[in-house]
Amino acid sequence: MAGVSVATVSRVINQNGYVTKDTEQKVRKVIELLHYEPNAVARGLAGKQTGTIAFILPDISNPFFPEVARAVEDVAQAHGYTVILCNSDDEGHKERSYIEVLKKKYIDGIIFASNTMGQEDMQKLYHIDDLPVVALDRAPTNQTCSVIRSKNYAGAQMAVNHLLSIGCRKIAHIYGPPQFVTARERLAGYQELVKKFPWYSPDLMVPGNFHLDGGMKAAEQLLRAHPDVDGIFAGNDLMALGALKTMSRLGIRVPEQISICGFDGIALTAVTEPELTTIAQPIYEMGATAARVLIEKIQGNDTNAQEYELEVELVERGTTRKKVT
Amino acid sequence: MAGVSVATVSRVINQNGYVTKDTEQKVRKVIELLHYEPNAVARGLAGKQTGTIAFILPDISNPFFPEVARAVEDVAQAHGYTVILCNSDDEGHKERSYIEVLKKKYIDGIIFASNTMGQEDMQKLYHIDDLPVVALDRAPTNQTCSVIRSKNYAGAQMAVNHLLSIGCRKIAHIYGPPQFVTARERLAGYQELVKKFPWYSPDLMVPGNFHLDGGMKAAEQLLRAHPDVDGIFAGNDLMALGALKTMSRLGIRVPEQISICGFDGIALTAVTEPELTTIAQPIYEMGATAARVLIEKIQGNDTNAQEYELEVELVERGTTRKKVT
Repeated sequence: MAGVSVATVSRVINQNGYVTKDTEQKVRKVIELLHYEPNAVARGLAGKQTGTIAFILPDISNPFFPEVARAVEDVAQAHGYTVILCNSDDEGHKERSYIEVLKKKYIDGIIFASNTMGQEDMQKLYHIDDLPVVALDRAPTNQTCSVIRSKNYAGAQMAVNHLLSIGCRKIAHIYGPPQFVTARERLAGYQELVKKFPWYSPDLMVPGNFHLDGGMKAAEQLLRAHPDVDGIFAGNDLMALGALKTMSRLGIRVPEQISICGFDGIALTAVTEPELTTIAQPIYEMGATAARVLIEKIQGNDTNAQEYELEVELVERGTTRKKVT
Repeated sequence: MAGVSVATVSRVINQNGYVTKDTEQKVRKVIELLHYEPNAVARGLAGKQTGTIAFILPDISNPFFPEVARAVEDVAQAHGYTVILCNSDDEGHKERSYIEVLKKKYIDGIIFASNTMGQEDMQKLYHIDDLPVVALDRAPTNQTCSVIRSKNYAGAQMAVNHLLSIGCRKIAHIYGPPQFVTARERLAGYQELVKKFPWYSPDLMVPGNFHLDGGMKAAEQLLRAHPDVDGIFAGNDLMALGALKTMSRLGIRVPEQISICGFDGIALTAVTEPELTTIAQPIYEMGATAARVLIEKIQGNDTNAQEYELEVELVERGTTRKKVT
């Protein structure tokens, strides 16, 4: 871009050897223009990719993520890429520290599942380091990078409509942490649909933590305040399983007395008896799409920031059943 | 070792430039002696490590592995290493293909969880490529590499003794696939302990597949053949949860009529109601130890092939309870 040789650029950067003032200015201008950072240039100079991508996720022990990671790795492997796994615990400083380490390793791109990574960070990643990035599931939309997600709002309404259709007459919602966009969208889907009903009351929405124990506690709290609740839509499967556990402990029969519907479609919804009705996201497909889109970007075939919103589906099982009247 | 310069070795390898017959022979002899492979030499010449290790495991979706992977990554990250994740599905050809790819990426070492990787492969890895390897959990002992595992035989006897102590009088075992050393050891622990009892019969041992559905089917089969069984020890938690599901479907009360004990201590043993009694392996500690031992080897502080056999413990929960007589 500066119209000079690689050796000349090297002399300017390392400040050794003779370079004319004019040439140095030209090179420095291009460096500034390109937001030069040594590693990106080294990668560019070498002119080849490392065949390595990174998947930064909150925690592989969270039962939603192993299937995503499996999909990412399957697709990556089929295209000759290996996958570096990074657990960020949704902590911004860990995410940034991983990125610093990964940049030094010349990885080709990153798949991000993050709540804390802000738009500014994403923009820095994408523009300054020229590193292809795809965000998964939890990232807010309107990023500069492509985003893979599923229909949380519509899925929540699918859950509530299902509970209504089997005869539930007072449906509560256990929602996830409000800093998660998925939790907010599922809550909004519930609220928008039920607020027109005479039985609606804001304290039918109780907070959970997206984990089993939070679902258990939220269900207890709910039953104390509203003993006549006959349907629960939980913001994810773990909290729904927690609610199911609470019912079992309190001797409340599911689905006869209370019906329960989760969200996600993780494998362990099939472990309990009765099995959990859920709004299934295409978990594997989300991971596979993220990897495919990232690889397209790495190979220069996809330069747009696009949003892929995947369909969800109702999986009817034992925790919901049509009321006999 | 050949007493010649790097440039000379390069000339011999690439067969360009002048090298005396005598020098070429010396170089070729050393190459043979060191089981030369270009990448290992390149790594040696560069004289530096990449700070990357690989974790080859059967399937991250198997609920035993996410916690192991989390531990491996936590320890690696604390030491400045990143972790490449590889799902082998326990297929030898996939494992070998990963190793070929990984060698080209100059990784510093490998953690292996494998049933199919034979001793010969391990030896080749360890000696020819000079690549530190640690085997996890499933590998047979007496490898040339260090092995991290837990006490399967003793743990199985712990399970049976617990079932005996609460008053069970006919205890069956659902065992995992015999190609898994862990399955064989747990089966042997059970059999050795129960064969002295008058109620013992070989068909109290029924095969499962280490998955939920296998545990469900095995429990059905068991109850048809032995309706008087009052205790089941399953070779892993998933099969135990399957047995629990079958009991629930058949209307058999757990633990009143049949007590169930699993093996592993995975997180989802706490999801069901009653919760599953299990012989807990220190899953996180196994992954963390594997990573620590591997890093010691990479840094040259640990050159022995050692076996680390970690303790297991009985976690008593709702699926086993002392019989009231």
